[in-house]
Amino acid sequence: MPPWKALEGARVLDLAQPMRRGMPQSPNHPPFRMTLERRHGDLVRPGGGSAANEIIVTGGHVGTHVDALAHVSQDGLLHGGRPAAEVMTHEGFAELGIDAFEPYVGRCVLLDVAAAHGVAALPPGYEVTVDDLERAAAGLEIRPGDAVLVGTGWSRHWPTGPGAPDVDYTGARGGAPGPGVDAARWLAARRPRVVGGETIAFEHVPPGRGHATLPVHRIMLVESGVNIVETMRLDELLDSGAREFLLVLNPLPIAGATGAPVRPLAVLGPPQSLGPPESASSSESSGSSET
Amino acid sequence: MPPWKALEGARVLDLAQPMRRGMPQSPNHPPFRMTLERRHGDLVRPGGGSAANEIIVTGGHVGTHVDALAHVSQDGLLHGGRPAAEVMTHEGFAELGIDAFEPYVGRCVLLDVAAAHGVAALPPGYEVTVDDLERAAAGLEIRPGDAVLVGTGWSRHWPTGPGAPDVDYTGARGGAPGPGVDAARWLAARRPRVVGGETIAFEHVPPGRGHATLPVHRIMLVESGVNIVETMRLDELLDSGAREFLLVLNPLPIAGATGAPVRPLAVLGPPQSLGPPESASSSESSGSSET
Amino acid sequence: MPPWKALEGARVLDLAQPMRRGMPQSPNHPPFRMTLERRHGDLVRPGGGSAANEIIVTGGHVGTHVDALAHVSQDGLLHGGRPAAEVMTHEGFAELGIDAFEPYVGRCVLLDVAAAHGVAALPPGYEVTVDDLERAAAGLEIRPGDAVLVGTGWSRHWPTGPGAPDVDYTGARGGAPGPGVDAARWLAARRPRVVGGETIAFEHVPPGRGHATLPVHRIMLVESGVNIVETMRLDELLDSGAREFLLVLNPLPIAGATGAPVRPLAVLGPPQSLGPPESASSSESSGSSET
Amino acid sequence: MPPWKALEGARVLDLAQPMRRGMPQSPNHPPFRMTLERRHGDLVRPGGGSAANEIIVTGGHVGTHVDALAHVSQDGLLHGGRPAAEVMTHEGFAELGIDAFEPYVGRCVLLDVAAAHGVAALPPGYEVTVDDLERAAAGLEIRPGDAVLVGTGWSRHWPTGPGAPDVDYTGARGGAPGPGVDAARWLAARRPRVVGGETIAFEHVPPGRGHATLPVHRIMLVESGVNIVETMRLDELLDSGAREFLLVLNPLPIAGATGAPVRPLAVLGPPQSLGPPESASSSESSGSSET
Repeated sequence: MPPWKALEGARVLDLAQPMRRGMPQSPNHPPFRMTLERRHGDLVRPGGGSAANEIIVTGGHVGTHVDALAHVSQDGLLHGGRPAAEVMTHEGFAELGIDAFEPYVGRCVLLDVAAAHGVAALPPGYEVTVDDLERAAAGLEIRPGDAVLVGTGWSRHWPTGPGAPDVDYTGARGGAPGPGVDAARWLAARRPRVVGGETIAFEHVPPGRGHATLPVHRIMLVESGVNIVETMRLDELLDSGAREFLLVLNPLPIAGATGAPVRPLAVLGPPQSLGPPESASSSESSGSSET
Repeated sequence: MPPWKALEGARVLDLAQPMRRGMPQSPNHPPFRMTLERRHGDLVRPGGGSAANEIIVTGGHVGTHVDALAHVSQDGLLHGGRPAAEVMTHEGFAELGIDAFEPYVGRCVLLDVAAAHGVAALPPGYEVTVDDLERAAAGLEIRPGDAVLVGTGWSRHWPTGPGAPDVDYTGARGGAPGPGVDAARWLAARRPRVVGGETIAFEHVPPGRGHATLPVHRIMLVESGVNIVETMRLDELLDSGAREFLLVLNPLPIAGATGAPVRPLAVLGPPQSLGPPESASSSESSGSSET
Repeated sequence: MPPWKALEGARVLDLAQPMRRGMPQSPNHPPFRMTLERRHGDLVRPGGGSAANEIIVTGGHVGTHVDALAHVSQDGLLHGGRPAAEVMTHEGFAELGIDAFEPYVGRCVLLDVAAAHGVAALPPGYEVTVDDLERAAAGLEIRPGDAVLVGTGWSRHWPTGPGAPDVDYTGARGGAPGPGVDAARWLAARRPRVVGGETIAFEHVPPGRGHATLPVHRIMLVESGVNIVETMRLDELLDSGAREFLLVLNPLPIAGATGAPVRPLAVLGPPQSLGPPESASSSESSGSSET
Repeated sequence: MPPWKALEGARVLDLAQPMRRGMPQSPNHPPFRMTLERRHGDLVRPGGGSAANEIIVTGGHVGTHVDALAHVSQDGLLHGGRPAAEVMTHEGFAELGIDAFEPYVGRCVLLDVAAAHGVAALPPGYEVTVDDLERAAAGLEIRPGDAVLVGTGWSRHWPTGPGAPDVDYTGARGGAPGPGVDAARWLAARRPRVVGGETIAFEHVPPGRGHATLPVHRIMLVESGVNIVETMRLDELLDSGAREFLLVLNPLPIAGATGAPVRPLAVLGPPQSLGPPESASSSESSGSSET
């Protein structure tokens, strides 16, 4: 059966946060800004037609995005021991940039740590532990080359309107939940293709510390060659109960960039294949129903 | 069978052109520019770690991208008769923006007009006709809601290196191949979800005319509510012989924008399912082998 | 005596704040960002030469800048009753833009309200009154066509280093000192060419209100046709004791923009002409010594 | 006499080209772009007021601008033998950036080489020689610390409207007139504070060569510590006949940048002091009339 037929009736979840001015992002990166340049009526062609367009200023690590391996170095070395200075040019990275990331279309496992704790979202500054991951992974197989997402429920806090309260989404003040060093090593040991989550940085951010040190980035990008997806919108996926699904991850191929925005998609089987709705929040049952 | 399993072993083709400074783009839109802000070594943390990042300036219609319905108006009206002035704000379009485009994961049909003419690429300024489309569509079913791509072979001219010759990819001087008005109406009558191709504008651009009038945009976006994908990289897909496949089309969800960059993917069945290699360039046989 | 000779030995004060990432600015405008694109060593020419350069993103009302008359409208009308819609294009304002501001090289009067109160800087949220202006103007002549600056001492709070404390320079929380409506009318009645000051907005900003309403802008730009200079660095000038001097005000001629950055200069007579140093802080005596 | 009084009635010439999208600039720098973000009517305050503003993207060497000493290095060294690597940070240059340029308000000498040849503008690709400079400087004193401008008449070619013909202002095809190496050394030997002219690069650009090598930049910026002003609008000044005047040169104080836009002003004595109009094109007589 050809792929297009195999996916007929599948349920597609959009895992990207909408990009708009003022959305939460790391203060280390250029703030996102989209401005209409031409509006309808500005230049009307003789036949009555008109086109509108925009200018966009952003960083590569803004909104939902994928970190390239070139994003982080340790002692001057990128992944595989490549000296950063050798591949770094004024036009970007000749190797290990985001354009070197082969689009991922494959199996993804969701470790819902929030659900494992019985909460909608982990508290600010919470460190995800090895035990958390093991509990969330119960009954799930993680294969080398898989994508692995860690659910914290944090994306439920994403501000959704102009009147939204001032949310500390970055965790600058109160911290943000994420894997600690040991959890990162546990993940890396499973040799995934990519890992990711909902927070601005896929890291345990203790209260008041900000993004001062990023050990999980080092472990993943430099030591393990595993890309990271950040600022994902997982709330709907968490609610769906799906724990293994098809992930499409195709960041913009910006030549030489250290990261790029992406609109990841989760493709789930047709709703009926997920079993009765009451089991939707149980990772074991939904997992078994799909394998 | 869950989606992730159904696609195991599938062949994924990247249909986006890499984004880099100086790449061909319409002169009507902000030129693409990516600049590294921090390089490794600029700010080394106490532990020896360092992060690099960038600033990106671009337009929404730059590189491989999807046109939102809000991109074009006719006599002040957008698709469905909505007055543009009513939904146009300084923060973008409240309706019909690219964030209103539901990511597409579904069947795609490729009408390879270049192959129908027995050439690798159509000549500059060539107008794709209804007859061309019918010949290229022979043996292929186009269903309402499908994606339909028109192959011109133009992406074979994309400049691939700094030493690349000065290519008239936009067709400003010599024109660019694309559908004329009748071909556009033929496409629209099949009620596709989206159409697209390799050129900067999905239009017949006669020599010396530039993008002065864009009737195909009007027919698709305004009259028919069909989105357009432009500047696609189809050369590898054309060579593959695949004529129907799974297309993933997930432009960045830039709130209110009239278009957004995208990295479209074609997912083909495993190589062996395409039949003997000698039939790869025949649209009829490869089509039949997949249905 | 030719101008260049007349100014030999003159003292030139730089009235602009340095422009750098993170500097205080209005949240309504694009944040300033300057990033080096090429650094030395990136592209070394055969002879050993190398050039570095940058990309700059900014707003027209960022850093020390001049407001064009086109910046503000009232009931759809710009200064002189011109309908804004008639002169507003997607490439900027055809009239009343900052490029229509003829560079100013002329007499400037400084009304040091802080000194009139015997303080280095007025408190946050302080409303400058007519009485304040009259006291500060004692002994000073204000002629039609002059530039008039109002000293609040606020530029003494400008953050000067990366380790600077978090300053509420915009007054978003605690307010900022500036002229109220009556003081603005008093200024406008003197028919100056331009007025200005140290705060982000030349307005009285009450605590907790931000830049919600900008009546002084309306009075100056729309009703009176008087341009406004904002975010000036006046501390050194205030300390100099000079109350009338030559002001050079030459904002960048950005065609059609509603404002533009500027590096204003105050040109004072040679130090000795200011009279004995002990009178430097007295506006009356320094004023008389120059007239 | 205080400076403001000394300059009463003076004639002020604006020496900057207006900045607009599509204006001539070096292809090595980010293209200038100004876009209105908010227009009048987008956000009308309760009282009927409305503000418009813009976003600006540019390079530091775009439009009329001043080169900082940090702009060019030779064998890794900046002016004074400072290793570029020592002062170059991801936030710009800690030394020798454009913010280190003290605003210039002083004597300026104009060497009108075009007039010396009896032409309105020198031909493309013309190399200004030592002999040219000496002829143009006849009767003029050049003092250490002066500003020295070299008139080529090139700014007469600046495109002035959207319908302007395609001008090779950069000289990419046909070259641009400017000082050769010997002329640069002649200028440097006079120890000016700054030199400048009308072309995109203050260099002799032979036809077909573009800005491949920039020896005059090396001589001025690196070897001599002399800043360069480029892309000046001198046509009106050349026509005025003034050969010595007051120059105000105050580039934006962009911290750490290698250059910045500027709106230079020439301040001439009142028109009557220039003598009879028929002598306006004679540098000797106008010079003597001012001294």
